[in-house]
Amino acid sequence: MEKYYIGIDIGGMSLKGAIITSNGNILAKETITTNCIGNKDVFISDLRRLILNLVNKNKDLKIEGIGIGLPGLINSTLGILNYSPNLKIEDVNIVSSLLDINKNVKITNDANAATLGETKFGAGKGYNDTIMLTLGTGVGGGVVINGKLFEGNEGKGTELGHAIINFNGPKCGCGMNGCLEAYASASALLKQTKEAMLNNKDTMMWEYANNSIDNVNGLTSFECAKKGDKVATEVILNYVHYLSIGILNYCNIFRPECIIIGGGISNQGDYLLDLVKKEIKEANYGMKNSPVVELKIASLKNDAGVIGAASLVM
Amino acid sequence: MEKYYIGIDIGGMSLKGAIITSNGNILAKETITTNCIGNKDVFISDLRRLILNLVNKNKDLKIEGIGIGLPGLINSTLGILNYSPNLKIEDVNIVSSLLDINKNVKITNDANAATLGETKFGAGKGYNDTIMLTLGTGVGGGVVINGKLFEGNEGKGTELGHAIINFNGPKCGCGMNGCLEAYASASALLKQTKEAMLNNKDTMMWEYANNSIDNVNGLTSFECAKKGDKVATEVILNYVHYLSIGILNYCNIFRPECIIIGGGISNQGDYLLDLVKKEIKEANYGMKNSPVVELKIASLKNDAGVIGAASLVM
Repeated sequence: MEKYYIGIDIGGMSLKGAIITSNGNILAKETITTNCIGNKDVFISDLRRLILNLVNKNKDLKIEGIGIGLPGLINSTLGILNYSPNLKIEDVNIVSSLLDINKNVKITNDANAATLGETKFGAGKGYNDTIMLTLGTGVGGGVVINGKLFEGNEGKGTELGHAIINFNGPKCGCGMNGCLEAYASASALLKQTKEAMLNNKDTMMWEYANNSIDNVNGLTSFECAKKGDKVATEVILNYVHYLSIGILNYCNIFRPECIIIGGGISNQGDYLLDLVKKEIKEANYGMKNSPVVELKIASLKNDAGVIGAASLVM
Repeated sequence: MEKYYIGIDIGGMSLKGAIITSNGNILAKETITTNCIGNKDVFISDLRRLILNLVNKNKDLKIEGIGIGLPGLINSTLGILNYSPNLKIEDVNIVSSLLDINKNVKITNDANAATLGETKFGAGKGYNDTIMLTLGTGVGGGVVINGKLFEGNEGKGTELGHAIINFNGPKCGCGMNGCLEAYASASALLKQTKEAMLNNKDTMMWEYANNSIDNVNGLTSFECAKKGDKVATEVILNYVHYLSIGILNYCNIFRPECIIIGGGISNQGDYLLDLVKKEIKEANYGMKNSPVVELKIASLKNDAGVIGAASLVM
């Protein structure tokens, strides 16, 4: 008999929910907008409304459990959201406030949920040991070992964006210097692009940005590099170098079967992947005689969150 | 009824073996010298001799299994030593060459074995999630998750000394730049000490080394720093800074309950530990709201290898 699970993906503006089958298929979707930023009562009330909507509209399906992916620092053991910079709320007892719904509820952070979803049903399907790096505003990370999410003590591990790759490097949002996030996030790429433009008045990137630094975005350097601009190409090759160092480190630390690249930057697809693969191959993964680590681009895109969250309770 | 296990610790000059109880106590020890460097037949023959000696001298004990810790790159799944720079042998089928002894045999690398030993019966006793960094000629590492050794695909993971902490840093033996090993090994400390001495003709370290750079060793900077020498203190504080960055990274990546420091440098005990703790505390582990990671000095010393190896089959 088919089994059904609810997966919830929490964002600052909307809460997305879905009913997912044990094959990772989405059976029903529901999204509600929310004004929960800074207000944990509104957050819990909206979260409950979303879950009850999904349950009530699908009364014929027996829901086995509910998984929730949250943006921020969580305590997965206690089922608490400790702090979310995006939602501006802290110390929210998620699991205990859903006790009356009488389902198995698990929470994790959004990068972990996406990693589990991609591993079970997306780019990492067929692999037991995977790592995902999400390259967005920050660099998130998740680790799956033996088909199960590895979260560290209290769910406070796998902050893969906050391992230092150059202790003399630029300041990171976390307070340290030279974290992977300070080099390989979309925000870091934006900064690297602007710096290169300010130092090179003749790069095509100025034209692409209508001669205003304010128009520069995460695509500027990629698009101009593809058109052969020398300065943009240099920006991208440097970015790829930084990202590859992070990837090589995680090869040596975890030796996963597959590393999945997600987040906004991963929309560059094969163009990005080929550059990273070339750099990784030349560095020979740091150690000889080691099994090849496959590199993949995330495939579930916007559904990774709900599918991954549901996977928590499968 | 008490159970008994054999643990084997392989070095370049001698093979050490012991019979270990399920409480981690050593019941009998046996060491044989070997001329196995560069000769895998001699290696296998000496290994078999050591094991058979232990079995035959303790015929009244039922041996449940045999664990072997090896210096080098191993494939723990296939039971093969792929390559050992120390022993100068490669592609040695360890497990299959011991099949006739009719015991459960498992192999891992020596840093992994020491980590498991320290976790089950040494400094990490009582913790389920630990990391050990061995600071010797190189920097070795091991990871225990949920009480079990985590080794990565084929046992090729947890090369914790070969994660890059400064991609602009000095060349590492592995070919990359700025690995933790290139900063925090005893060899790296020696290099840092010599550099500081050559730039400072008036440091006490010259007197300590009888005015010859060839007399400098891993103790020089520690001993002179303890006596208040300014240059030596700077060497040690820089060394502690590098080591602490590695430790912080592993806090953020794994969030273990405890990190154990082993290897020759760990003989500095509380002097080293207090300096590292101070630096780690100031950096607040990189992330707020995170559970404290305990720092400990390895306690099993020379027995970690045999006890850890035996733990593999417990």
